[in-house]
Amino acid sequence: MGDEDVVLLDFWPSPFGMRVRIALAEKEIKYEYKEEDLRNKSDLLLKMNPIHKKIPVLIYNGKPVCESLIQVQYIDEIWPHKSPLLPTDPYQRAIARFWGDFVDKKIYDLGRKVWTTKGEEQEAAKKEFIECLKLLEGELGNKAYFGGENLGYVDAVLVPFYSWFYAYEKCGNFSIERECPKLIAWAKRCMEKDSVSKSLPDQDKIYDFVLHLKKVFGIE
Amino acid sequence: MGDEDVVLLDFWPSPFGMRVRIALAEKEIKYEYKEEDLRNKSDLLLKMNPIHKKIPVLIYNGKPVCESLIQVQYIDEIWPHKSPLLPTDPYQRAIARFWGDFVDKKIYDLGRKVWTTKGEEQEAAKKEFIECLKLLEGELGNKAYFGGENLGYVDAVLVPFYSWFYAYEKCGNFSIERECPKLIAWAKRCMEKDSVSKSLPDQDKIYDFVLHLKKVFGIE
Repeated sequence: MGDEDVVLLDFWPSPFGMRVRIALAEKEIKYEYKEEDLRNKSDLLLKMNPIHKKIPVLIYNGKPVCESLIQVQYIDEIWPHKSPLLPTDPYQRAIARFWGDFVDKKIYDLGRKVWTTKGEEQEAAKKEFIECLKLLEGELGNKAYFGGENLGYVDAVLVPFYSWFYAYEKCGNFSIERECPKLIAWAKRCMEKDSVSKSLPDQDKIYDFVLHLKKVFGIE
Repeated sequence: MGDEDVVLLDFWPSPFGMRVRIALAEKEIKYEYKEEDLRNKSDLLLKMNPIHKKIPVLIYNGKPVCESLIQVQYIDEIWPHKSPLLPTDPYQRAIARFWGDFVDKKIYDLGRKVWTTKGEEQEAAKKEFIECLKLLEGELGNKAYFGGENLGYVDAVLVPFYSWFYAYEKCGNFSIERECPKLIAWAKRCMEKDSVSKSLPDQDKIYDFVLHLKKVFGIE
């Protein structure tokens, strides 16, 4: 793989970036990590993602791929021989994509509401957040990973939010583990893998970042 | 294909349902079309899509697949031999998925804003809607279809909104063709194909439906 040039434009607390880090780590792909300052985006970021101007951007041999769910699929398609992430069966692939899409549509926004709102709005967000996690817990069932015996696409897509759970819990004054013990057991199982634990920042560091953001946004 | 049982739970004005109709038509797959009453959803819909409870649902040999972008990919994967929709090259696949995702994130919501709002809010929606269409026009470039010489994934994903354009124009008092003539030429090219024209309702019928919805929602 000597002629391969892989660059990741990222921002350390981004659960979307973490997905890509996990996928690359699972495939044992070496890459150059470039941290972005989102208040002062690099010319490279603006050139590589002119449509959304967002991280993460995965640049492979000079060509950019944007949007984390698409990046994880792309990584799986260009390096298919090690640690397959999506199932080979079309139906199972569709189901994995469904849950990846579900995480994308629900978890980030609801988690954000938990730490940016108060009172009734926060209670509603907490309730819906837990309901969504319970649906995911139901889909996990008794499997070790969403991918079955091995870590797969949905695992890589969802587990980054585990690094944010402590911040949600502190800001929302609730316990995710009490509500969803099987999901937390799954997250801890994922964290036993280097590909995951080395791709996720410490929960305390995310909590400090959230406290910083609350100050910046003027949220009490 | 005698033992194949394909059912589509759908609602006729849905651009998301139209995508699936186009994909099935391109593949020449016979299916049973079941129209849903969204104010009184069928037990089958609630059973087949318990998470989102939304149409379209594609049911293949009793097993449901939800979310239209996933359905179109699934159709392409289980019937790969006729009218391939996604490119075979992983990078081109990623780019097609990017634009499919872009359509999903932008076009429906902005189009909806055009006919549900007034004044400054409507002007802002019209402006952003046209900007998004121009980005799509740029991606189309001088190709016949987004898929190149043949209709592909992004074409199937985007062209259903063409059936809504007349309603947007009447409600928003603007001309999409004046702003994006190449995109309209592309849409008309798509409509020359039976797979598209037979999957899309008449623009007047959609406009009548929008007028009906405006009454239901109490929008002047």
